[in-house]
Amino acid sequence: MGDDLRVNGDRLSARIARLGQVGALPGGGVARLALTDADKAGRDLVVGWMRELGLSVTVDAIGNAVGVRRGREDGPPVMTGSHIDTVRTGGRYDGNLGVLAGLEVMATLDDAGVVTRRPLAVAFFTNEEGSRFQPDMMGSLVYVGQLPLDRALATVGIDGPTVGDELARIGYAGPAAVGTGRVHAYVELHVEQGPVLEAEGFTIGAVEGVQGISWTEFTLTGQSNHAGTTPMQLRHDAGLVAAEIATFARRLAKDLGGHQVATVGALTLSPNLVNVVANRAVMTVDLRNTEEGLLQEAERRLFAFADEAAASEGVGLARRPLARFQPVAFAPELVARVEAIARALGHRVRRLPSGAGHDAQILASVCPSCMIFVPSVRGVSHNVEEFTSPADIEAGGNVLLRLLCELAR
Amino acid sequence: MGDDLRVNGDRLSARIARLGQVGALPGGGVARLALTDADKAGRDLVVGWMRELGLSVTVDAIGNAVGVRRGREDGPPVMTGSHIDTVRTGGRYDGNLGVLAGLEVMATLDDAGVVTRRPLAVAFFTNEEGSRFQPDMMGSLVYVGQLPLDRALATVGIDGPTVGDELARIGYAGPAAVGTGRVHAYVELHVEQGPVLEAEGFTIGAVEGVQGISWTEFTLTGQSNHAGTTPMQLRHDAGLVAAEIATFARRLAKDLGGHQVATVGALTLSPNLVNVVANRAVMTVDLRNTEEGLLQEAERRLFAFADEAAASEGVGLARRPLARFQPVAFAPELVARVEAIARALGHRVRRLPSGAGHDAQILASVCPSCMIFVPSVRGVSHNVEEFTSPADIEAGGNVLLRLLCELAR
Repeated sequence: MGDDLRVNGDRLSARIARLGQVGALPGGGVARLALTDADKAGRDLVVGWMRELGLSVTVDAIGNAVGVRRGREDGPPVMTGSHIDTVRTGGRYDGNLGVLAGLEVMATLDDAGVVTRRPLAVAFFTNEEGSRFQPDMMGSLVYVGQLPLDRALATVGIDGPTVGDELARIGYAGPAAVGTGRVHAYVELHVEQGPVLEAEGFTIGAVEGVQGISWTEFTLTGQSNHAGTTPMQLRHDAGLVAAEIATFARRLAKDLGGHQVATVGALTLSPNLVNVVANRAVMTVDLRNTEEGLLQEAERRLFAFADEAAASEGVGLARRPLARFQPVAFAPELVARVEAIARALGHRVRRLPSGAGHDAQILASVCPSCMIFVPSVRGVSHNVEEFTSPADIEAGGNVLLRLLCELAR
Repeated sequence: MGDDLRVNGDRLSARIARLGQVGALPGGGVARLALTDADKAGRDLVVGWMRELGLSVTVDAIGNAVGVRRGREDGPPVMTGSHIDTVRTGGRYDGNLGVLAGLEVMATLDDAGVVTRRPLAVAFFTNEEGSRFQPDMMGSLVYVGQLPLDRALATVGIDGPTVGDELARIGYAGPAAVGTGRVHAYVELHVEQGPVLEAEGFTIGAVEGVQGISWTEFTLTGQSNHAGTTPMQLRHDAGLVAAEIATFARRLAKDLGGHQVATVGALTLSPNLVNVVANRAVMTVDLRNTEEGLLQEAERRLFAFADEAAASEGVGLARRPLARFQPVAFAPELVARVEAIARALGHRVRRLPSGAGHDAQILASVCPSCMIFVPSVRGVSHNVEEFTSPADIEAGGNVLLRLLCELAR
């Protein structure tokens, strides 16, 4: 059943374009921060499409929307979806693709008159991005019970109001209890948001899991001195220690190899003047690995090096953890199915980890879950220039279609 | 003559305290930016003291003030002095000490009824700091003919008006032609503005010369990428290259040794976010050496390393020279005299270069010149916490007194 079915790529791309008009930025791209008026308009559009497709829509108390297509039997649905909120200067694909491809699968099945055994569901989860309200993946965290509803509702946004206020204001404080229904399996189609697939000529990524994340802020406290009059051996240069930590982070990623990545994206010196030795440096180090043990090893080595570098320069060091998530492994049998289906459909496919966080990693704690990646041109994401070609979108949609059919068969 | 004379340390310190009240900042320190109302008030006070001491005061067209004490013979005077303008949050000693110690020498000679063979002069030069008008050392540059008067007068300050406007406004566009008189020798007493003398237990520094300065700005242009999804080998991390250049600069100073110093004081990343690879880094490198050949060698090595590091990361590099001054050597016979006099007066003395710029290095192009340093507590300068002990000030004043007497004998 469904092996000869194909999604309508044009219809899917048209929905992506239409949703991309909601909150469109003048120079391209989209701004639909969670629970703003633009998010409400996007939600209304997508819920409208769900209803047009005859899905039974429920909105829960944290604003997650789930549209269910009845199967021949009752029971936990096979779910797909993602999110439709965006960052402040986002693209049209991140999140939106997964939700709209889910709708396209429903439409394709409708066109073919196919009724699956299990119910199918397409969901969008509230505030996946975390740009307005922390933490990110809020809706799915509440959905699986990892974040208490009342705490989520009380979260204050960067512009003042709480999640609860804003849900009520935009009419998405739904009546459904959160996370009461079981899910048979969860599949999320998403743009890679990285350059690997395009760079290596693959159309489909079979996502093995999500990297664990370790964010650390280092504050280095040295002494402000005259760049001309202070001999090197009398310096306590906070900027130098920061630079040493940054170059070490790169060496560390190289030494550990595999999926280890390390990034110093933020670094601020004070007083930041050409002829004054920096008395203060604040920097972040972002470490990610698919293996928890290796991630811990990376942390150990980084912290040891930083302590030593600071001590050797006579600079004070304070360390603050900013975020820490363990790696998540997706269900191996689902990853293998993504690979097999992509091959069967004639697409070059490779396994890879996700370097970004996704609702699927949260769902993975309650049901077998997996993700399908399609290429992001130049790896650009969280950016108005985010782009995935219509052909790749169609390819991803077809892998999703067949996998959902197999799981719901 | 004069070997038994000693300055009155209390009188000198009292003048420093009194001048420090002009433009005093609420929390301590002084703000007398060049040619502001506060600078005018400081000038009026010092010129008044010059006149009280019977000096013949001339103000030239760039606002340099010179007070001359007649000698038994006419001819070029032995000159001392410095500047009385300050940075925005300056101390009481930088510049002011040299001018007021010159007045104290005059007062001491008056008290003892000493008339030297050659005339003695004490000068303060306009806008040594360069905080309001660029370049710094403007008054002395015009004085020796290295900067045309009309160009200096047309210089626009950070707050709008020109040097010429402000000189006229505060009444210091003097009638004297600039730099017409010859100078027999120039001696400047100054605070070290560095930590060496205090750290090593010396009271007097015999300044051998002023370090050459090379300031370079590097702009590194990489690619903004997701810190999780972008494999290390696909990155073009502008921040990494900046960090590599910063750590290389430290190694370079160590390798070259001697008086080579290297500082990365300013470094700014964009977009400066924890989870985004920096697509842009702007940084400065400040190199200084007492030997022009070594300074050029340092520049060569730095530029070669930076080019290589940028190319290896696939990051664009643009280099912009911000400032370049050759080293200046003070007259060896004067440096030796400073050393001998300090020893004769019972002070621990060491030779050292000046890492900061001073009017003396400009005067050195027209007459034998030298500087005497006294310790700066913790090396702090250009800071409201700048401090030199009264005992050290008195010691410096006595070295200056004897050297001026020897030169004017």
